[in-house]
Parts: sequence; C-alpha cells; structure tokens
Amino acid sequence: MQGKSTRQTLLEAAAKLFDERGYAGTSISDISAVSGRTSGAIYFHYTNKEQLAVAVVEEHFASWPRMIERHRTTGRPALEKLVALSFTVARAFRDDIVVRAGSRLWMERKAIAAPLPTPFLNWIGVVTELLKEAAAEGELAPGVDPVGAGHSVVSAFFGLHTVSDALDDRARIEQRLHDLWLLLLRALQARPDPVGLLDRVRDELGAAVAK
Amino acid sequence: MQGKSTRQTLLEAAAKLFDERGYAGTSISDISAVSGRTSGAIYFHYTNKEQLAVAVVEEHFASWPRMIERHRTTGRPALEKLVALSFTVARAFRDDIVVRAGSRLWMERKAIAAPLPTPFLNWIGVVTELLKEAAAEGELAPGVDPVGAGHSVVSAFFGLHTVSDALDDRARIEQRLHDLWLLLLRALQARPDPVGLLDRVRDELGAAVAK
Repeated sequence: MQGKSTRQTLLEAAAKLFDERGYAGTSISDISAVSGRTSGAIYFHYTNKEQLAVAVVEEHFASWPRMIERHRTTGRPALEKLVALSFTVARAFRDDIVVRAGSRLWMERKAIAAPLPTPFLNWIGVVTELLKEAAAEGELAPGVDPVGAGHSVVSAFFGLHTVSDALDDRARIEQRLHDLWLLLLRALQARPDPVGLLDRVRDELGAAVAK
Repeated sequence: MQGKSTRQTLLEAAAKLFDERGYAGTSISDISAVSGRTSGAIYFHYTNKEQLAVAVVEEHFASWPRMIERHRTTGRPALEKLVALSFTVARAFRDDIVVRAGSRLWMERKAIAAPLPTPFLNWIGVVTELLKEAAAEGELAPGVDPVGAGHSVVSAFFGLHTVSDALDDRARIEQRLHDLWLLLLRALQARPDPVGLLDRVRDELGAAVAK
C-alpha cells in the first residue's frame, strides 16, 4: 500500500494556499510548512513557484474532460445534459480545492511569470456542440445561433462565478445558477419549460441542486 | 487657466500602469516616471500605493451614476434603456483607462492590502429597477422575476467582459454583447423582438454599436 505521491501532496498543499492567499501571498516555505516536505523536495519536483502554479491550473483543466464525457453519454436530451453539466461544474468550483485554486490563479494570471492555458475556448466549443445537438433533436428554439449562444452561455456561467465569489464566496452558487437557467432556458427551448427541465436535472443529480 | 491638478495627473498615470501591468507590477517610481512628478509629490497626495489603487477604483465607480442617470432619463422604454446603458458601459470598459484599471485592480483585489468597494450590488439594483419599470410598461415577459433576472443579467454582462478580455482584449466586446442580448431579450421581452430593439439602440447610440 502506498500513500499519495510527494508530487500530489505538494500540489494539494499549494492549491490550498493559492486558493486562500493567492499567488503573490503564497511562498515556497508556506507550501513546505503545509505539506510537511522540505523546500528542497519542492524544488526537486517543481523547479519554482511558477511551475507549481502552472501544475495546479493544468490539474484544474484536467478535471473537465471526464466530467464532460460523463454528462455527454447519459442519453438524456442535450439541453438537460448542458444544464446538468453546469451544476456539476459549479459544485466543483465551490468545493474542489484544485479547481478553486486554478480559477483564482487564472484570474491572477497577469501577475504570474508563466503562460497559463486559456479556459474559455474549450467550454465555448462544448456548449456550442450541445446546442447543435439540441437543434438536431428539435429542442432548440428556431433562430437561436448555437455559436453566438454558446459564447453567451459560457460568459454568463463564468460571470455568475465572479459575482458569487465576490458576494458570498459562492455559497449561493446553485441558487444563482438555477435563476440563470430559468432565464436562459426561456430563450433556448423550442417549447419553453425551464421549471420542468430543472426538476428533471435535480432528480438526476440529487437533492443538493437548489430549488 | 489651469492645467490638470497634480492629483489627477498622478491618478491617470497610475491608472495607465495598473491597467497595463497590474497592481504588483507597478511601483511608485514607475508612476513617478510616467507622471513626471517626484515620489515625494506622490506620497504627499496618496500616502502609498494601496491608496492610489483605492483612488483609481473609486474614480472608476464614480463614472457610473451620471452615465446611468443619462440613460434613465431618455424617455425610452425601460428595456431599451437597459440595453443602451450596457453598450455605453461596455465601451467604457474597452476605452476608458480609469475604468479598465479599476476593473483590473478589482480582479486583483485579494492581493491589495486595502478594502475595495464591491461593484456588483449597485448594478444588480439598477438592472432590477429597470426590469421592474419594464414590467410596469407591460414589456417584460410574464413570469420573469426582476430580482433573479437582474442578478443573472449583471452576471452575464460581467462574464462577457472576463471572457472577451481573455480572448481578444475586448476588441469584439460590442459584437459579443449584441449576441448576448439576442439571447436574453428572447427571454425578457413580452413580445420578443431582439433585432428590432437592438436596431433602435444602434440608432440611438450611433453606428459604433456592432451589427
């Protein structure tokens, strides 16, 4: 039986600190203190603080493909997949320390001397595909352009996180997301029934989704 | 005849640098070099870099009330006021150096050792009031809750800025905002006609609003 690798332990300690204190507020010696590993061990694995930040953001990014695939293959209508995926992602932004840290580091990217990947293009692609799938199912309202709407939906979703983070540390993110979908689904559904769709997603994901 | 005050000159030099380099990347001696004033003059007016950052964010905030009032008193239907206001604000976020700097500083607020005002609550209030006005005019779709929708519209609007900033330094912000309203107005208008409303706003604001 083997414990977590040193690399993973260091990554999680760094994520915890980056989430709480940001990039500038976190030092290698803080990470050493939280992880219980020496600075030497940290430099052996990550070279410098920039590389640790890049590793956290990459780990954050790596959490999405499996989550997307899981929702894409449920066999449900595409708009339900999209809404369910958004709640799963919102929970990760609220609860997953690596996702939270990656998101904060990305916001602070201009202060980090290493290039970070840009998050939005992939998400816009995923949402656009799901909207096209909804159109093929006859469930997208006529006249909605999947590309423009995909961009708008992703922007609205990430804006919700910024606002929720500022107002209450994302405590009410599920309620806010529910409100957002009440509005957006009126525009997106060929036969608007936001409440019905949100009820079905709640049944799928469990009671934690806000009513 | 009098030139700009030293205070204003310093504020604008600081805003330019904060916008380009962020808070951590800007020093008092940079501000001295750009403004042509001594460090002593800067400290006389602003005490320290934190106070300059707070002053820039406060100046950013101070630009909104007059802009809001101007749109509120056009006599147009409330949803047109809302859309026109959003384009005016978007242009300020793209073109006004103090607004850009204030926005960036606010994003980096966790790295600044001074409390900054929270921007979103006032905007949510303004948008909610305009949606209530639209409801009183019979132009808001039945069943839309102005409070929940106000929160969602503000989130979507600010998310658009984050995404546009990341993808193309806001170069296409007007096109993106146009796409967002094409979607949101379908949900908000009692008799959906997003293209017609956007045409009227374009006529009001001038040709610079994206088609």
